Amino acid sequence: MTEQSDDPVQELTVEQCWQLLGDEEFGRLAYRLVDEVHIVPINYLVDNRCLLFRTASGNKLLAAALHSDVAFEIDWRDEHSAWSVVARGSLRRLGEDEQHRLDNLPQQPWVDTPKYDVVELTPDEVTGRSFQLHRTSVPHEAPSS
Amino acid sequence: MTEQSDDPVQELTVEQCWQLLGDEEFGRLAYRLVDEVHIVPINYLVDNRCLLFRTASGNKLLAAALHSDVAFEIDWRDEHSAWSVVARGSLRRLGEDEQHRLDNLPQQPWVDTPKYDVVELTPDEVTGRSFQLHRTSVPHEAPSS
Repeated sequence: MTEQSDDPVQELTVEQCWQLLGDEEFGRLAYRLVDEVHIVPINYLVDNRCLLFRTASGNKLLAAALHSDVAFEIDWRDEHSAWSVVARGSLRRLGEDEQHRLDNLPQQPWVDTPKYDVVELTPDEVTGRSFQLHRTSVPHEAPSS
Repeated sequence: MTEQSDDPVQELTVEQCWQLLGDEEFGRLAYRLVDEVHIVPINYLVDNRCLLFRTASGNKLLAAALHSDVAFEIDWRDEHSAWSVVARGSLRRLGEDEQHRLDNLPQQPWVDTPKYDVVELTPDEVTGRSFQLHRTSVPHEAPSS
């Protein structure tokens, strides 16, 4: 935290936000399709203050999302505190002349897909907040069969 | 998981989705304001197959979001697997005649706010997926000062 305060919600600096974005590799992308809002979990990598996503080739939803602004979020929490960082901006599919940027991507995607495109989110705005919590979080469980 | 398969991505049943929604209490709400998409982390409670949120009274962004469909997401992961559940639908602010539903809410919100409204998300659609992962996730850290 940047400072001690009685306020349970603290704004993070832009530098703190980028540090957290660089340390993390999993977030949620929210995008609009006409009147609908969609949200999907997604792996990413930070490259030159942009976020790179690997997405299944021909993903129709994401292709449509290329025409509107999107919001991307990462967060973390334990029983005492939490933080959230949101990057808002536009998407762009990387061209073949930028394939060298793939070298920076993790060697394996989390989920194997036979073909993929790489999409770049260039943030217009990066904001973050930290929270002091007042109750204990519930442990997570995998879905039961 | 509902079944064993070579496919690393499995659809969850609606019942599995609701079980996970009931076990969790923290997610992300994505909503639209004119051409902008916003996403915020938020506490929630399941009540009668609806999601209840406590929000700061007079939250202008959320008030505006009441006029459009929204998407809400929860997820979980470890080094081997992950899941994500998305509920899509519309928001409604609870009236005074429904304040008794507050009795089911956690006794304390995670973040203290002096006044709040309660907003209900009635899902039109609840979907979920589980993923078999192929690499180890990076440990999370709190933001450094």
